[in-house]
Amino acid sequence: MQVPVRLNVATGDFEDHFEALLAAKREVSADVDAVVRDIIDQVRRSGDEALVALTNRFDGLALTPETLRVGTDEIEAAYRATARPTLEALELAYRRITSHHERQRPSDDRYTDAIGVELGSRWTAVESVGLYVPGGAASYPSSVLMNAVPAKVAGVERIAMVVPAQKGELNPLVLAAARIAGVDEIYRVGGAQAIAALAYGTATIRPVAKIVGPGNAYVAAAKRRVFGTVGIDMIAGPSEVLVIADGGNDPDWIAADLLAQAEHDAAAQSILITDDAAFADAVEQAVERQLTRLSRRATAEASWRDFGAVIVVGDLAQSAALADRIAAEHLELAVEDPEALFAGIRNAGAVFLGRHTPEVIGDYVGGSNHVLPTARSARFSSGLSVLDFVKRTSILKLGPEQLRALGPAAIELARVEGLDAHGRSVAIRLNL
Amino acid sequence: MQVPVRLNVATGDFEDHFEALLAAKREVSADVDAVVRDIIDQVRRSGDEALVALTNRFDGLALTPETLRVGTDEIEAAYRATARPTLEALELAYRRITSHHERQRPSDDRYTDAIGVELGSRWTAVESVGLYVPGGAASYPSSVLMNAVPAKVAGVERIAMVVPAQKGELNPLVLAAARIAGVDEIYRVGGAQAIAALAYGTATIRPVAKIVGPGNAYVAAAKRRVFGTVGIDMIAGPSEVLVIADGGNDPDWIAADLLAQAEHDAAAQSILITDDAAFADAVEQAVERQLTRLSRRATAEASWRDFGAVIVVGDLAQSAALADRIAAEHLELAVEDPEALFAGIRNAGAVFLGRHTPEVIGDYVGGSNHVLPTARSARFSSGLSVLDFVKRTSILKLGPEQLRALGPAAIELARVEGLDAHGRSVAIRLNL
Repeated sequence: MQVPVRLNVATGDFEDHFEALLAAKREVSADVDAVVRDIIDQVRRSGDEALVALTNRFDGLALTPETLRVGTDEIEAAYRATARPTLEALELAYRRITSHHERQRPSDDRYTDAIGVELGSRWTAVESVGLYVPGGAASYPSSVLMNAVPAKVAGVERIAMVVPAQKGELNPLVLAAARIAGVDEIYRVGGAQAIAALAYGTATIRPVAKIVGPGNAYVAAAKRRVFGTVGIDMIAGPSEVLVIADGGNDPDWIAADLLAQAEHDAAAQSILITDDAAFADAVEQAVERQLTRLSRRATAEASWRDFGAVIVVGDLAQSAALADRIAAEHLELAVEDPEALFAGIRNAGAVFLGRHTPEVIGDYVGGSNHVLPTARSARFSSGLSVLDFVKRTSILKLGPEQLRALGPAAIELARVEGLDAHGRSVAIRLNL
Repeated sequence: MQVPVRLNVATGDFEDHFEALLAAKREVSADVDAVVRDIIDQVRRSGDEALVALTNRFDGLALTPETLRVGTDEIEAAYRATARPTLEALELAYRRITSHHERQRPSDDRYTDAIGVELGSRWTAVESVGLYVPGGAASYPSSVLMNAVPAKVAGVERIAMVVPAQKGELNPLVLAAARIAGVDEIYRVGGAQAIAALAYGTATIRPVAKIVGPGNAYVAAAKRRVFGTVGIDMIAGPSEVLVIADGGNDPDWIAADLLAQAEHDAAAQSILITDDAAFADAVEQAVERQLTRLSRRATAEASWRDFGAVIVVGDLAQSAALADRIAAEHLELAVEDPEALFAGIRNAGAVFLGRHTPEVIGDYVGGSNHVLPTARSARFSSGLSVLDFVKRTSILKLGPEQLRALGPAAIELARVEGLDAHGRSVAIRLNL
């Protein structure tokens, strides 16, 4: 294999190389928009009939509207068939994710200001949510928990999950995780047709108000297209980790963390920043050694070769500014004083502090959410949370006295904005 | 003029008519995507050169890169030329919006759980924000305050405003409002070219991390297109109000409120729900009377005729479920006990309680934000707030003991998900 790109802040061309690293496009977005539009139109027009026909064609099934929904017995059977240690791990994850997300519930605010105007914000749950779960190898039970739990904690009353059953197969662990998380309905459909059904509804699947969960290019394009009719979460790109590590680490530990990210996807990205060039060498050698033992070697190797990077800085203090520009989905601070370094960094989806917090803990059982902003979007967005499943109504309440106090200023602003009827709506109440 | 559609819940075909009202498409989205893509490509490729050329062509100007930015002297002159009552109204609005939004700053959270794992959420401001302000008649100083103040309160360090100067003219009140709100930079550019400059940067305009503010179809398409490279706010549709009013109101007051919304745009929508058919008649007559006096009569008349609706219910309690389905941007509760009615309603961007709180107060000086979810999106989204200008980093910190406690569950989940390297990254630290 080839070693990944090595950058050193001390070299004159560092800025050019770093800019190129930031600008590298890791994902080729297939142009599936025309196909997706057609699929959505069909489901919108013909409901279950189109949904069933498309599902049977794409997934090699022979469903009817009656068999779209996964029965309670099938879900129970999957749960009961799950090995005890797996179930215990899922339940531990569920409990920890729930506890953490319960702290994210926003508080209502209601107050009266100095002149007697009542103001406030009231939060309410989104009524219903659709949860997309990919089929095949990317059908992860942990992602079911990560998407469903914040919705449940927010108070969403109905969670409808869709998951394609390619050739009839559903991952029983996904069903078990859905049962643990309290998902209300599960349908064996996927792709753009499933997104269309959730957005517009069919006779079998009632429409939802918001759709979350990862998917392939068709699913992503369908989500973009139905956005507005329903809410959507972020469109996730390939996963990434930035590890900032000093020479005090075991190179094998850091190599393992870089590879955990790389094994996700050939387009995943693992970046190491260190102030110790010899340590960087040792990590690269450890990566090469460990790679040979991985079941997903080809994927991890391609990711590390094509998108991996090792950046050597003169001083770890220099790494903060680079981290902010990278704005990584996952940021590991495997350094002597991680809190001090973290205080100087602003852009990261999630941070993992110290040598004993591998990012993988956050993927499963830490309690925080593993749905995080990718592709530098941590500069302006956040990981999935309870806030994604609630919305705020702002409150205003005036009496006659408050209207007399504020009305003239509103009338003046309406006047200069040329909005007569705005002014009149206040003036008429003040006999002006 | 034609009266608007009248619905009565007591009639057998109510549900069909109500569904049709909800489904009515008020906006024809022009297909400007190809043009916008080309404009963005030009600015991305040629920076200031393209930005200046496009601006000069579209806005009839003769700018150079040196004159793109509005000078401090020009801003000061606009501020000084603003009439005292206008300035006082803007400053009152500014103070009230600031006070209200200061209550929206989210709190960091950091805690240690029962087994010693440290978790948390840390909020930081988005570094830089672009604020789009339309030119011409829709160039509202109030919107400058509503977009800029939450960003300032959030701690955004740099706000770059763009506003097209068609034929060289800038609304001096927009400059004055920008000065009051503390906008850092103003550029006389608009359209898709301005959005491209903010997203990708040029020699004159440094790129921002997020773009907010309303605009025409070109601006909206450009925002959708640069989304991902930068964050964007919601794409605003035509404005709307739902007024729920009992027979105890002055019909003229309610008519004025319906018209204040209708004058915005021929695609705006004003809906009245009442339990009093005679009152409904009186409001409709008042609308007709008041219409004749409005400077924006044609717009208001078209909106009321094409999209206005009056719904008569048997009992006001029935209005809550209808309000939730309408999910209005603005909801006025002009009833005897507005708090009781509000308690039963879930979906609304902003609520205005009681007979003395016309929605217009919220447009200008109430203190809450007037950028609110339109087109039924209050089912899943919220008005603009400080939360739109901050982002959250989730925090996880384990020591060796916590890793021993949680590690085996993470390894088990990695195993069942087929992610070897994930498992290894934990196991290697536990000598497993």
